[in-house]
Amino acid sequence: MKPGEDKLVERIKYALGDSQSASFQVRLGMGDDAALFRPRAGHELILTCDWFLEGTHFLRDKHPPDSVGWKCLARALSDIGAMGGTPRCFLLSLALPASCTRRWLDQFLAGLRHASRRFHCVLAGGDTARREKILVNVTAVGEVRIGHAIRRRGAHPGDLIYASGRLGEAEWGLRQVKGSAKPVTLKNPALKKHLYPVPRLALGQWLAEKRLATAMLDLSDGLSTDLPRLCAASGIGARIRATDIPRLPVSASKGLRSEDLLRLALHGGDDYELLFTVPPKQARALPRSFRGLPLTQIGVITPKKQILLLDDNGREQPLRPLGWDPFRSSR
Amino acid sequence: MKPGEDKLVERIKYALGDSQSASFQVRLGMGDDAALFRPRAGHELILTCDWFLEGTHFLRDKHPPDSVGWKCLARALSDIGAMGGTPRCFLLSLALPASCTRRWLDQFLAGLRHASRRFHCVLAGGDTARREKILVNVTAVGEVRIGHAIRRRGAHPGDLIYASGRLGEAEWGLRQVKGSAKPVTLKNPALKKHLYPVPRLALGQWLAEKRLATAMLDLSDGLSTDLPRLCAASGIGARIRATDIPRLPVSASKGLRSEDLLRLALHGGDDYELLFTVPPKQARALPRSFRGLPLTQIGVITPKKQILLLDDNGREQPLRPLGWDPFRSSR
Repeated sequence: MKPGEDKLVERIKYALGDSQSASFQVRLGMGDDAALFRPRAGHELILTCDWFLEGTHFLRDKHPPDSVGWKCLARALSDIGAMGGTPRCFLLSLALPASCTRRWLDQFLAGLRHASRRFHCVLAGGDTARREKILVNVTAVGEVRIGHAIRRRGAHPGDLIYASGRLGEAEWGLRQVKGSAKPVTLKNPALKKHLYPVPRLALGQWLAEKRLATAMLDLSDGLSTDLPRLCAASGIGARIRATDIPRLPVSASKGLRSEDLLRLALHGGDDYELLFTVPPKQARALPRSFRGLPLTQIGVITPKKQILLLDDNGREQPLRPLGWDPFRSSR
Repeated sequence: MKPGEDKLVERIKYALGDSQSASFQVRLGMGDDAALFRPRAGHELILTCDWFLEGTHFLRDKHPPDSVGWKCLARALSDIGAMGGTPRCFLLSLALPASCTRRWLDQFLAGLRHASRRFHCVLAGGDTARREKILVNVTAVGEVRIGHAIRRRGAHPGDLIYASGRLGEAEWGLRQVKGSAKPVTLKNPALKKHLYPVPRLALGQWLAEKRLATAMLDLSDGLSTDLPRLCAASGIGARIRATDIPRLPVSASKGLRSEDLLRLALHGGDDYELLFTVPPKQARALPRSFRGLPLTQIGVITPKKQILLLDDNGREQPLRPLGWDPFRSSR
C-alpha cells in the first residue's frame, strides 16, 4: 500500500506531534504552505542545512533506521552548537521508495523524535517525494544572542587550539558497521558515537556565553580537513602535537596499533566534537572537562598560513587533509 | 577535473556573491558552519523547503540547467508568497555528479542568480554532495508582519474563491518538453511558465497587507489537489464552476479541445498561481486584475465538506483530485 503524500505528511506530523506543541515559537508545522517562527528579542537566527543520503552518508542494509532518523537531525544541530547557538526548530525533506513508507519510516521517525525531544528542537515543516533511494535533507534553525555567535574566523596567532571529546571514535564505528555482514546490533558500545552522535550544544553555548572562544567549528569531516577550514577563514596557520590529540584508548579498539588510532583521530569524520581556539590569557578559565566531556589542548595558532603536525618523534611535517570530502572520495 | 567540496562552495558563493552583499540582514553565508540572519522587529519568519530532483521534478536531457536553477528557488518562494510574506534568504543543498560540476553547474547558477536578484532573496548557506543524479533542495526564509500571515485555514462558508492568472499553462509546457526529442529552445513562449515560473509575491503581500483573504495557498500540484487541501484545513467544502476557471486560450494550444484545456486547468501542476478566499463584503475591494495579473472568481466556499464541480451543462459532480502526488503517480 502506498499512502499518498498528504497521508505521509500526516504520519510524520503525528510521530513528531508531541514535541510540536512544546514550542511557543513555532506556530505552523508541516501541512501549511510554510512554517511560521517568531524569534526572541535580542537574538539572531542560525540557519543550516545538511544532506543525509543513502549510499553516501548511510547504508540502508546496515544502518538501523532509527539511527538514520537520530543522526540526520543531530548532525545539523552540531552546526548550530558550533556557533554557540540553541536549536529551535527544523524542516525535514524526505524522499522514500514505496517499500520504506511503513516499517522503515516508523523506525526512522522514532529515532528522529528521540533526537527532537532530547535537543528541544521541534518539527516545523518539510517536503516529501517518492524516490528509489532514501534521501534526507534537514534544515535546522537556532538562535543566539546578537553578537555572541562564534564564527570560524576570529582565531589569532598565539591562541591555543582545543578539541572536545575523543577523535576517531565515529570512524572506528563506521568501519565495524561496514565490516559486518548484517545490520548492526545496538548493544555494541563502540558503535554508539557513529550511530547516535551527540552534538556538543551545551559546551558551544557556554563558550559563547563566556566569550572564551575566538573561533570554532564542529569536526564533521575530520581534524585534518576541518582545522585548515578554520585556519583559512581566520587567515592564519596552526601547529598541533600528535601526542596530545585525544583518541580512542587501545583497550577499546582491539587489533589497532597506536599509529592507527592517531590516523583515525586525524582523518576520521563524523565525530561532531568541537574544535575551538582560546587566547592564552583566557585559557585559565577553561576547565579540563566540561560536564564530563574532556577538553584537550592540541596545539597553537601560528601567523604562517601552514598546518603543521609535530609527530611523536618531535619532527614537524605538513598535515595533509585526508578527511571526508564528497567530491574527492566516496565512503 | 573534479573540484573538491571547498572549491565547489567557493564557486557557488562567487556566482551568487553580488546579491549576498545586498542584504544587511544576512551576515554569514556559505562556508561557515551556518548562516546568521537578523529578523526585523515586529515580524515573524516564514520557513519552507522544497525538493527539486532529477527524474522526479526535471529531466537533465530536456530541461535547460538555468531553468532548473531559476525554478528551484522560484517554487520555494511561491510558498512564502502564499502566506503573504517577503522572501529574505535561502539555503541551497546541491548534490551533483562530477560530470555536472562545470558547464551544467555554471548555467544552473546563472539561472539561480537571476531568480535570486529578481526576487531579492540572497544565498545564506547550503550543503554539497556528490551523487549520480542531480538533487536539489532549497530552504527559503521570508518575513511577514506578526499576525498578517495568510494560512490555509480561515475560509468560511460564503467566502468567494479566487485564482490568479491562467491555470494549466505550465502543464501544457511540460507536455511539450516531454514530447520534444532534444533539449527545448527557450524561444517558445508556451514554455515560459513551465521553465521560469514567477511566484506571485506582490499579490500575496498585497492581500496580506489589506487583510482581504481569509485563506490562501499556491497552486503547485493542481487545482483539484490543492483546493481540497485548503478546504480540509478550513474544515469546509467548495463549489466551483467549470466555465469560470481561467485557462489557456484555444489559440495558444493548437490541437487541444476545450475539454482538454479544462482538464489541464483542473489537474495541471506547477502553475504557482495563488488560490484564495475572500468574504463577499470584501470582494468589492478586489480588482479584476492586479498589476496585469487577472484575478478570477471561480466558486464559493460551502459548509458541507465536499468539493463540487458545476460542469458546462449545469450538472454538479464531485471534483476528483487528479493533480500531482509524488506518492501516487510519477511524472
